[in-house]
Amino acid sequence: MTEEQIKALLEQLSQGEKSVDEAMQTLRDLPYEDLGHTKVDHHRNLRNGFPEVIYGAGKTPEQIAEIFAAMMQRGNVLVTRASEDAAEAVQAVCPEAEYNPMGRTIVYQPEPVPKRGGKVLVVTAGTSDLPVAEEARVTADILGNETDLVSDVGVAGIHRLFGSLERLREASVIIVVAGMEGALASVVGGMIDRPVIAIPTSVGYGASFEGIAALLGMLTSCAAGITVVNIDNGFGGACAATRINRLA
Amino acid sequence: MTEEQIKALLEQLSQGEKSVDEAMQTLRDLPYEDLGHTKVDHHRNLRNGFPEVIYGAGKTPEQIAEIFAAMMQRGNVLVTRASEDAAEAVQAVCPEAEYNPMGRTIVYQPEPVPKRGGKVLVVTAGTSDLPVAEEARVTADILGNETDLVSDVGVAGIHRLFGSLERLREASVIIVVAGMEGALASVVGGMIDRPVIAIPTSVGYGASFEGIAALLGMLTSCAAGITVVNIDNGFGGACAATRINRLA
Amino acid sequence: MTEEQIKALLEQLSQGEKSVDEAMQTLRDLPYEDLGHTKVDHHRNLRNGFPEVIYGAGKTPEQIAEIFAAMMQRGNVLVTRASEDAAEAVQAVCPEAEYNPMGRTIVYQPEPVPKRGGKVLVVTAGTSDLPVAEEARVTADILGNETDLVSDVGVAGIHRLFGSLERLREASVIIVVAGMEGALASVVGGMIDRPVIAIPTSVGYGASFEGIAALLGMLTSCAAGITVVNIDNGFGGACAATRINRLA
Amino acid sequence: MTEEQIKALLEQLSQGEKSVDEAMQTLRDLPYEDLGHTKVDHHRNLRNGFPEVIYGAGKTPEQIAEIFAAMMQRGNVLVTRASEDAAEAVQAVCPEAEYNPMGRTIVYQPEPVPKRGGKVLVVTAGTSDLPVAEEARVTADILGNETDLVSDVGVAGIHRLFGSLERLREASVIIVVAGMEGALASVVGGMIDRPVIAIPTSVGYGASFEGIAALLGMLTSCAAGITVVNIDNGFGGACAATRINRLA
Amino acid sequence: MTEEQIKALLEQLSQGEKSVDEAMQTLRDLPYEDLGHTKVDHHRNLRNGFPEVIYGAGKTPEQIAEIFAAMMQRGNVLVTRASEDAAEAVQAVCPEAEYNPMGRTIVYQPEPVPKRGGKVLVVTAGTSDLPVAEEARVTADILGNETDLVSDVGVAGIHRLFGSLERLREASVIIVVAGMEGALASVVGGMIDRPVIAIPTSVGYGASFEGIAALLGMLTSCAAGITVVNIDNGFGGACAATRINRLA
Amino acid sequence: MTEEQIKALLEQLSQGEKSVDEAMQTLRDLPYEDLGHTKVDHHRNLRNGFPEVIYGAGKTPEQIAEIFAAMMQRGNVLVTRASEDAAEAVQAVCPEAEYNPMGRTIVYQPEPVPKRGGKVLVVTAGTSDLPVAEEARVTADILGNETDLVSDVGVAGIHRLFGSLERLREASVIIVVAGMEGALASVVGGMIDRPVIAIPTSVGYGASFEGIAALLGMLTSCAAGITVVNIDNGFGGACAATRINRLA
Amino acid sequence: MTEEQIKALLEQLSQGEKSVDEAMQTLRDLPYEDLGHTKVDHHRNLRNGFPEVIYGAGKTPEQIAEIFAAMMQRGNVLVTRASEDAAEAVQAVCPEAEYNPMGRTIVYQPEPVPKRGGKVLVVTAGTSDLPVAEEARVTADILGNETDLVSDVGVAGIHRLFGSLERLREASVIIVVAGMEGALASVVGGMIDRPVIAIPTSVGYGASFEGIAALLGMLTSCAAGITVVNIDNGFGGACAATRINRLA
Amino acid sequence: MTEEQIKALLEQLSQGEKSVDEAMQTLRDLPYEDLGHTKVDHHRNLRNGFPEVIYGAGKTPEQIAEIFAAMMQRGNVLVTRASEDAAEAVQAVCPEAEYNPMGRTIVYQPEPVPKRGGKVLVVTAGTSDLPVAEEARVTADILGNETDLVSDVGVAGIHRLFGSLERLREASVIIVVAGMEGALASVVGGMIDRPVIAIPTSVGYGASFEGIAALLGMLTSCAAGITVVNIDNGFGGACAATRINRLA
Repeated sequence: MTEEQIKALLEQLSQGEKSVDEAMQTLRDLPYEDLGHTKVDHHRNLRNGFPEVIYGAGKTPEQIAEIFAAMMQRGNVLVTRASEDAAEAVQAVCPEAEYNPMGRTIVYQPEPVPKRGGKVLVVTAGTSDLPVAEEARVTADILGNETDLVSDVGVAGIHRLFGSLERLREASVIIVVAGMEGALASVVGGMIDRPVIAIPTSVGYGASFEGIAALLGMLTSCAAGITVVNIDNGFGGACAATRINRLA
Repeated sequence: MTEEQIKALLEQLSQGEKSVDEAMQTLRDLPYEDLGHTKVDHHRNLRNGFPEVIYGAGKTPEQIAEIFAAMMQRGNVLVTRASEDAAEAVQAVCPEAEYNPMGRTIVYQPEPVPKRGGKVLVVTAGTSDLPVAEEARVTADILGNETDLVSDVGVAGIHRLFGSLERLREASVIIVVAGMEGALASVVGGMIDRPVIAIPTSVGYGASFEGIAALLGMLTSCAAGITVVNIDNGFGGACAATRINRLA
Repeated sequence: MTEEQIKALLEQLSQGEKSVDEAMQTLRDLPYEDLGHTKVDHHRNLRNGFPEVIYGAGKTPEQIAEIFAAMMQRGNVLVTRASEDAAEAVQAVCPEAEYNPMGRTIVYQPEPVPKRGGKVLVVTAGTSDLPVAEEARVTADILGNETDLVSDVGVAGIHRLFGSLERLREASVIIVVAGMEGALASVVGGMIDRPVIAIPTSVGYGASFEGIAALLGMLTSCAAGITVVNIDNGFGGACAATRINRLA
Repeated sequence: MTEEQIKALLEQLSQGEKSVDEAMQTLRDLPYEDLGHTKVDHHRNLRNGFPEVIYGAGKTPEQIAEIFAAMMQRGNVLVTRASEDAAEAVQAVCPEAEYNPMGRTIVYQPEPVPKRGGKVLVVTAGTSDLPVAEEARVTADILGNETDLVSDVGVAGIHRLFGSLERLREASVIIVVAGMEGALASVVGGMIDRPVIAIPTSVGYGASFEGIAALLGMLTSCAAGITVVNIDNGFGGACAATRINRLA
Repeated sequence: MTEEQIKALLEQLSQGEKSVDEAMQTLRDLPYEDLGHTKVDHHRNLRNGFPEVIYGAGKTPEQIAEIFAAMMQRGNVLVTRASEDAAEAVQAVCPEAEYNPMGRTIVYQPEPVPKRGGKVLVVTAGTSDLPVAEEARVTADILGNETDLVSDVGVAGIHRLFGSLERLREASVIIVVAGMEGALASVVGGMIDRPVIAIPTSVGYGASFEGIAALLGMLTSCAAGITVVNIDNGFGGACAATRINRLA
Repeated sequence: MTEEQIKALLEQLSQGEKSVDEAMQTLRDLPYEDLGHTKVDHHRNLRNGFPEVIYGAGKTPEQIAEIFAAMMQRGNVLVTRASEDAAEAVQAVCPEAEYNPMGRTIVYQPEPVPKRGGKVLVVTAGTSDLPVAEEARVTADILGNETDLVSDVGVAGIHRLFGSLERLREASVIIVVAGMEGALASVVGGMIDRPVIAIPTSVGYGASFEGIAALLGMLTSCAAGITVVNIDNGFGGACAATRINRLA
Repeated sequence: MTEEQIKALLEQLSQGEKSVDEAMQTLRDLPYEDLGHTKVDHHRNLRNGFPEVIYGAGKTPEQIAEIFAAMMQRGNVLVTRASEDAAEAVQAVCPEAEYNPMGRTIVYQPEPVPKRGGKVLVVTAGTSDLPVAEEARVTADILGNETDLVSDVGVAGIHRLFGSLERLREASVIIVVAGMEGALASVVGGMIDRPVIAIPTSVGYGASFEGIAALLGMLTSCAAGITVVNIDNGFGGACAATRINRLA
Repeated sequence: MTEEQIKALLEQLSQGEKSVDEAMQTLRDLPYEDLGHTKVDHHRNLRNGFPEVIYGAGKTPEQIAEIFAAMMQRGNVLVTRASEDAAEAVQAVCPEAEYNPMGRTIVYQPEPVPKRGGKVLVVTAGTSDLPVAEEARVTADILGNETDLVSDVGVAGIHRLFGSLERLREASVIIVVAGMEGALASVVGGMIDRPVIAIPTSVGYGASFEGIAALLGMLTSCAAGITVVNIDNGFGGACAATRINRLA
């Protein structure tokens, strides 16, 4: 129920068009419906130009294309973890959909989202981190942020990072994407006082334990005020950056 | 070296007051000195009213008091993880220092930090999470943020959270502090679209594994865009909130 | 040996039809045979209409079909974790067998199990949890319970759960199926005072560690009196619900 | 708000004693307040004779006694994980409070809870499991269940369990408390078709990893339909048994 | 019931001294009682001179002395994990009890157990492993085995082991006690073809993880046919050696 | 060098047929060669009829067949973890080789190993444990032991185990093979006082963690004197049983 | 910028060919560029004959060949973790590239690296460790070290190691490659006082946990002064050996 | 036996002073005795001026003083992990012994060890890492290395490290001591091409898991050729550095 509907009901009651019992009946389930309504409204504002999102992992190209076809009626659509086959299946039903093979994303954006001020910068330690970084960048873009990407500035060659210092300083929010020991987040967090979101990746082998080494390294970073999201969660990192960048 | 110093050096050279070799000698180590300088400057701005911080765990009251006495000359001081004994030792050298027994913090603030706009709200699942929550709240306060605290709104009695919805909606940044399964972060993250920083606590026993259950729960939250800091890291959560709130 | 058989033996002895030594010989292994007998009897009651169960994972379609063909002589049969290929192989020998592709179950039920009172309600956090949820629902059904399924009411959109509150309140036993952080179990357990069985699923990636995050979250739930079964164990959850629902 | 309060409001509106705007204002926050109310009502029924509970671990005797003194006004009180010192402090303010040194519980029960039908039986593998078992038994008792305790029937001497088979068969719900490898739960679950709740304990050393061995053993039990609660969680096991036993 | 008792019962029935119903009644619980009886008999043989055992960890000196006083009536007694205080408390009630401070055992042996042939040899990697080794040696001794102890022959000085090769070759069963990386078990197992029981100890720090490193090393030993018991389980290792040495 | 060779050398020296320097040269590397020799001799005795062993996992059928062809010249050969394809490849070069598809072993035994007294009994909890059990049984057989196999007597139907009690009592050594919670080892170890070797299997899913649950359960067994080998290590369990059975 | 370039700039300034502002502009980013430059220079020395390295895992043969084709212009190239298919693809563009199927390396070395003094010896416990050992040996070779390989000297047959003692003693640096329990590193480290680098391998199953058992064993080695690299990291072990061998 | 002793024996035999049997008897155990001898000799060289070492953790001050008193006769002595009480007890028997309260070491060095060329530099991330760093530095010193210490140059303030670059470049071997995320090792390893030994410390809390985060970070470092020792193992790191520095 909307506030208007409640008001209408109360007026009907006030004017004798409804009895107290009838009104009572209608209001009985109000808490939850209204809660729902509040959420919906709230969501509507929130989702102004926000894409529908399909998590592609574990779905067949056919399933993805079918869901996509339903969703594209309602507006922008983002598919993450999409294989090339999935992209082909989607483009068969929606030729305008764009596939990003590095980030494994499919984007359909009939109504371009207006960009808010403040840039979300994605920084990667190594080129192997690029798929997660691109997932983050594409997600941040479709969520209405200016974005930039600085890649391959891992701490084993720390001078490469210094060469990009200006670009780091211009960003509102920095997303650091790193696998292996994930140390880049600490170095960036120590140099820049903007919000830093660290995304550990599963890049590495052996004692990297599918990203646990990077995850623990980022959680225990000696640079105060770094926050962390799940391993390989480029999408989530971009959502967090968007929550922050809206304040800027 | 500052830019002014470099410029002065170049002018001395340009006017023959220094030889090329002398200038060369001075510039030889410039990269690092200058880098250092940049950091210092950068830090100075950053630290405008920022406290010196002492991590009290594993230090004796005497050690804490000694470090405190040295630091209090330079401005505001914050001690975290401070025992009551530590507080007494500190107050012997600095009677104005205030002890917060719940948050285990000691604060000395001769020059009150001006508050920036935007409120940092700390939300706890249970009363056992209060020490970490208070550490976060006190830290956020001394870092120049308006703060508020909503406690004991864990998901096992979800209606309690709804009663505080207005206060959640007014905040710029929300810090959710929860132990055990840490589910409060997901619920808050699903209801509010502001930045949400989740702090897992070591509250619990058995399969809570000193906070691992809450940590994993927060990292894998189904609410997109929640970020996480280390277990019991109230200080770090407040630093992250400050990085964000500066944008507001 | 049944009690009747023992009695008969004793009467033969009492009437001189058997010698003490012969009776002794027969009784020698009684403890274990009788124990077995007790179990068998007990099982017979228990298994009134209870299906034979084949765990399909790690078996070829041919193996499953062969075991199925043998079992279908004895009554109802349930196959869990069955692939589509397995279903085809089974239906070749038993055309009446029904395949549930979502729950990956094959059911053959020549003698429909009478339903006892009390409903088993299966609730899922997300649509990805449906395979486990359906395994639970189908198993509960063939075990003689009324069943219902409420899906996609995860805590990131808590209002969706409230919209189903009536259905939750009508159930005797609730099975909550959730992956990722598994927080739905805590919320349901806090709202409903009926028995709640939580099934963690391996849905998720990274720090969900194949269901460990959900498992730990459910074990450390702040809602008192929630019980947990193994990860992805829809079958076991339904068996537990049946043990409980028999009391209703 | 209660239903009566809503009805009264609607009648005031219907009779012109309140304007639509005034009613609207009052109803505005209804969803959450009412939700709260529902919970409260629901809780009131649930808590008929239900004790207030204090988790004693990590609290000083003084803190426990102070909370106890406040709670004892409202009815029954249960303290878990209470040391002997805590018991003395409590008995100083409430001489009627009874201390169970084995189960480390303090119980104050001015209004004896009427017992419902159906017995909750607690079974332990070894005598070292008794503290957790007693916590479960005392909790189940104060929650209104008939209780019984069978101890020291671990699987290394399986015949001891058979000697108690009758008592196991008479119970509505069985709580199996076991540390080390926790195998007792499987054996009981295989013999008895009633609901079985397994509580792993931290009894053991080395590879028992503070109860992890027992926890994993119970979760992966080959006896279908066993459910598990957190390590050492006697309280939670009893709450789960109560949820179930209410159906009986 | 013993076989003799059953036979007597059958003869009473056969001679009309008991009715079928009376016999039936007596036999009704036979399975479990007899099973118990079998176990008892079986145990009696097994326990010929076998000590009663008290696990001292987590018990107060008073508790240990009290249990000890009761047990000493029945024959030999062994206390493991006994502190010096416990030994004093026991010796107050039983002056003949001997305390082994290295192995933390108390032994009371009024009837010396006759030794069977075949020697149990305990080998340690370092002197820090001696407490566990002595617990094993003392236990093996009181269980009726000849014992020997070779200490401090860890693999970092492999030549020390070779100097003891003769003693290793004379043993029927070898118990290898080692912490840290536990490699001694592999080397001994590769040189000697007798049964080798490996006991990992919690000696070490950091990545030894309280004995996990040694446990894993022993389980994955490249020397075929080594068996392993729990971390620090000197008692269990000696029991296993006794099971084996009985065959010799 | 053999003792005879050393003696011959000494005699040549004693009789002037070799100079001191020549003898010295020969003896120079004696320590290691002789050590090797001792090992070889020792091995020869040990290996009387002992097969060459090929660990088939991770090798192609071609590689296995090639190694097999070389080894079959020297006597008996055992291949473990062999696929059906590997068996075909081997049988192409050695038609007498026998493939055991359940145990995934290939055995070639031109000279049948004489059996020593004492039987090795393999017991399994479930039918899914049969591959590991058969690997153990076949290995024990080719190592010269009488063997027997009792399958599917897991603790969830404890009466099944009692039906096989006689066969358990006749064995010299019992190998218990169990996955999931691995509780069968404790029950067998409590009933039988012979050496018990527990092999955890990776049978199970979720919280069985590829055999860790069973492994921990067996290591922490409440039945004293059970020993454990690596997960799925049927070969190692049989080697351990052989070390023991040689003593019988 | 090189030192020469800075000097040239200063001279231009000194001679009036550049203004202070122009020089200032050029020097503005000096810190980072110069840092970069230092790294580059440093790298140039370091990389004298050093190969470009491609980590082949997770790349398609086509990708590898493409990167290889670009890199081969600049000098030596090393590909690690290369499949046979990758080798074919590379050899199509560079027929001189040599594939090592055991070590899974591709090496192209138009300008043979001059060998420095001091030998790097790679020692393996078993033949299954050869792929990692060969990766280490080939890497060490192309990095300019003399290399040697001793294989299959694991501790279960310790005499085999003694037979190679001379070769161990001749090396400057020893790389020990071992899976399963990884005990070889301790034995070698105890016998030889040269630098020992231990590489744990993922060889093994069950409780070897993909190399964790070996890793922990090596980290907790009782032989003082052994260092460890990541699981299966033959490349890293060789790089560490090279850093050390440069000192010799 | 020494080579001289063997030669003498052979000459006695050659000259008829010993019979073949007598010589045979003497040589019988040669392999192991000689091996031992070789080790002893080898050790003697190795230990030229090398201290006896006592690991103080878990020993009482009295025990340490007693061992110390015995060892000080033989030359230099080093105690690690020594409390202040232990130092007092030692100084009572050996007033010249020096206590280092930061490194928790006691050193007695009557014959000063001559320093070899090449400096061992210890670098720490934070001041909390100093105890481990000092243990490493003192150990390296007493093992005959020049040493230096650079502290508090963690990556969160990367410019601090650059200020010490000269000192890093002068070292032969660098030991990096760091807790929390341990990223300093990667940065140092990327800047300096000398051998780098990383020591993770247990500094940190929560997700640092007593040093696991730092350990994993160092093992998975993106800087090639870094080696790692056990958590908090300052002694081991210094031993490794000494093995390396001997080559310089």
